Amino acid sequence: MPRIVILTEGKSTPNDAKTATGILRYRGADVVAILDSTSVGKRAEDVLGTGGDTPFIARLGDVEADTLLIGIAPAGGDLPREWRPVIREAIERGMDIVSGLHYFLGEDEEIRRLAAERRVRIHDVRRPPPNLTVSRNVAKTLRVHRVHTVGHDCSVGKMVASIEIANALRARGRRAAFVATGQTGIMIAGRGVPVDRVISDFVAGAIETEVLDQAGEEFLLIEGQGSLVHPLYSGVTLGLLHGCAPQTMVMVFDPRRKRIKHTDHDMPPLSRVIEIYEEMASLMVPSKVVALAANTWGLTQAEADRAVAAAEDELGIVTADIIRHGPARIVDAILARHEELGLERGKGTAGARSGPAPERAGLGGAP
Amino acid sequence: MPRIVILTEGKSTPNDAKTATGILRYRGADVVAILDSTSVGKRAEDVLGTGGDTPFIARLGDVEADTLLIGIAPAGGDLPREWRPVIREAIERGMDIVSGLHYFLGEDEEIRRLAAERRVRIHDVRRPPPNLTVSRNVAKTLRVHRVHTVGHDCSVGKMVASIEIANALRARGRRAAFVATGQTGIMIAGRGVPVDRVISDFVAGAIETEVLDQAGEEFLLIEGQGSLVHPLYSGVTLGLLHGCAPQTMVMVFDPRRKRIKHTDHDMPPLSRVIEIYEEMASLMVPSKVVALAANTWGLTQAEADRAVAAAEDELGIVTADIIRHGPARIVDAILARHEELGLERGKGTAGARSGPAPERAGLGGAP
Repeated sequence: MPRIVILTEGKSTPNDAKTATGILRYRGADVVAILDSTSVGKRAEDVLGTGGDTPFIARLGDVEADTLLIGIAPAGGDLPREWRPVIREAIERGMDIVSGLHYFLGEDEEIRRLAAERRVRIHDVRRPPPNLTVSRNVAKTLRVHRVHTVGHDCSVGKMVASIEIANALRARGRRAAFVATGQTGIMIAGRGVPVDRVISDFVAGAIETEVLDQAGEEFLLIEGQGSLVHPLYSGVTLGLLHGCAPQTMVMVFDPRRKRIKHTDHDMPPLSRVIEIYEEMASLMVPSKVVALAANTWGLTQAEADRAVAAAEDELGIVTADIIRHGPARIVDAILARHEELGLERGKGTAGARSGPAPERAGLGGAP
Repeated sequence: MPRIVILTEGKSTPNDAKTATGILRYRGADVVAILDSTSVGKRAEDVLGTGGDTPFIARLGDVEADTLLIGIAPAGGDLPREWRPVIREAIERGMDIVSGLHYFLGEDEEIRRLAAERRVRIHDVRRPPPNLTVSRNVAKTLRVHRVHTVGHDCSVGKMVASIEIANALRARGRRAAFVATGQTGIMIAGRGVPVDRVISDFVAGAIETEVLDQAGEEFLLIEGQGSLVHPLYSGVTLGLLHGCAPQTMVMVFDPRRKRIKHTDHDMPPLSRVIEIYEEMASLMVPSKVVALAANTWGLTQAEADRAVAAAEDELGIVTADIIRHGPARIVDAILARHEELGLERGKGTAGARSGPAPERAGLGGAP
C-alpha cells in the first residue's frame, strides 16, 4: 500500500480540501500526514471533520512517505504557483505524485523532466481515457439499476453519498458498485471517468462507456457532478445525467445553502430542483428522486434532526444525513424502487462487459 | 481571397454535408468546386439546395485552387480513413487544409510532416482557444442583447438563422454580430469558439469570453448547439445556454422531425421544448422564446406555409422560415423584445473589450 502525504497548504477546510477529506475518509489507512504548515499540532478530525489522529506536518521531511497527493481542487483546476516548490521537493525525495488538477503535471516541462530523472510516476487522475466519442444512447436499455446521486449544488456530498449507499447495499448482500466521475472518487475507487475534463461533446459517451463496463452489477451508484441549476457546471451535470440515464436519483442537499456556491444566485426551493431533475432525466427513461441525502455537517444533532424532518415533511420523500443517521432508510427507498421497476434480485445486464478495471490513480483499488 | 475546394466525397446531401452547405451559402464566392466523384455533372444548387452553379469535380487536378476544406462533420468527428489520400494529395499540390473535425489534422504525424515539407497550413478550426477556464457567471450582467438561436434538435438550421437575423438587423441600421459556436460558423465568420470541443468544465466560460469580447455590440446572435432534449448533445447545449445567459431565444425547428436525430426518442411537442428552454435559461436571467424559425427545406410552398401557420396558431409565437419567408417578422419580434427589456438603441456594454477578432480559419473574416 502507498504511504501518502496529502498537500493542503493553507487550505485545510472541509470546503477547500474536498479531495483531502475524501481520501482521509475512504483511504485513511494509507495516509501518513497532511502537509499544511498552518495547522501543525492539530488533528485531522478536528480540522477537516474526518481523518482521526492523522497529523499535520510543516515539511515533507517530517515523515516517511512515498506519494504526494494534491488535496485541493480549486475551481478551474490550475496549478497554484506556490505549490511548485513542494512538488519539486517531493519528486527529489523520490515520491510519486497524484494530482486531480485540470493542469496536467505530467505535461509540465520542468516537472516531467524532474520526474524522469528521479524515476517517479506522475498520476494525472483527471486525464480522460483515450478513444472517447459521442454517446450511443444505450445506457437506458440496460437492466442494471442506475442510481445517480444528484445535487442542488456543487460540493455538497454526492461522492460520499454514492460510496456509502454502495457499501450499504453490499453489506445487505446485494451487488453494487460505486461509479466515480470526479478526481477524488477516482483516487478512492482506482477507476472511473473524470467527466468534467472530457471534451464536452463526449461527456455522455464517457459515462455511458463506464456504465457499460459495469453493467453486470445489480446496482450502480453513479456519482453526480455540479448541479443543473449551477451556472458554472450545469452542462457537465446534464451530459452526465443523460449519459447514464438513471431510473433512480438520490438528491443530496445542504439545508443551509441559500445561494448557489461561487455565485450570487439564490438557491431555488428544493421541490423545484427535484422537479427540474426529474423532468430532464425522464427525457431518457422515467426517473424519480426516491430519497434526499441531507448534508448537515457542522450542525448540532438537534438542528440536523430538525432540518431532516422538515425536508421529509415538506416534500414527502425519505430524508437522512447518511453520515449522521446512516444510509439504512435511503437504501430501503432504493430497494423499494428496485421492486417497483420490476428488476430482479442479483441481476444486472447479462453479457455485459466486465473487464478488469484500468488502474487510474496508482493507489490500487478500493473501497 | 482563398480559392476553395470543398471535400464531400460520397456524402453530398444537405444532411451530411452541413459544413459544405454553410460555406456555399455564406462564402460561396470563394468556392471553386466540390470534390465528390459521385455527383460530377450536377450543380451544387440542385444537390445541396445552395451553391448555385458551383461544379462537382472528381479529382483535385480538375481546377485551380489553394485550399481544401473538409465539408462533412460526422458525429464523433473522426477522420474517415478514405479521406487520407485526398488530404495527402491536396498538401502535395501545395493547398492549405481547413478542417472542423474533432480529430486534429495538425497533430497527425503523417499529415503534419507532409504539411511542413510543402509549407502549407493546416487550420484545425475546432481547436479550442488556449487559456479557457470555468465561467465567471458575468454574461448576465451585460447590457448587450443576447439573442440565442436554440433548437428542438441538432442539425436544424440554428447557424443559418443566427447569421440571417444578424444580417437583417444590420440592414436595418442596428449593430449586431453573429457569434459562431461551431466549426462551420467559425469558418464563415473567421472567429468564434467551438464549444463542443472545449473541456466540458469550461463550456460556459468559453462562450462567456466570446460574449465579453463582443459586448460592445447592440445585439449578439449566439449560435445554438444540439438541443436540451437531445441525449447525445444536451450537456453542450446547457453549458452554452447558461454561459451566454440570453434574454431572448429564437427556437429553430423542423416541423417534420418526429424523432430526435440519431436516436429512437420521440420528439416532444414543441410547446414542451419551449417550456424546458425557458425554464432552464431563466435560471440565469428572465428569458423568453420570442419567435420560431421553421426549417421547411424540401417542402412545397403550400406545405411550408401550412406548417408555419399551424405552429404560429398553436403556440401564439411569431413563426417564419427565414430562408423562404425572410427574417422580417422574426426581427420585428426581437426588436419588440429589445424595447420590452428597456435596452436602448445602439447601446451595448460600455467599456467592453473589443479587440480585433483572432483569425481562426485562415479564410479571412465574413459575412
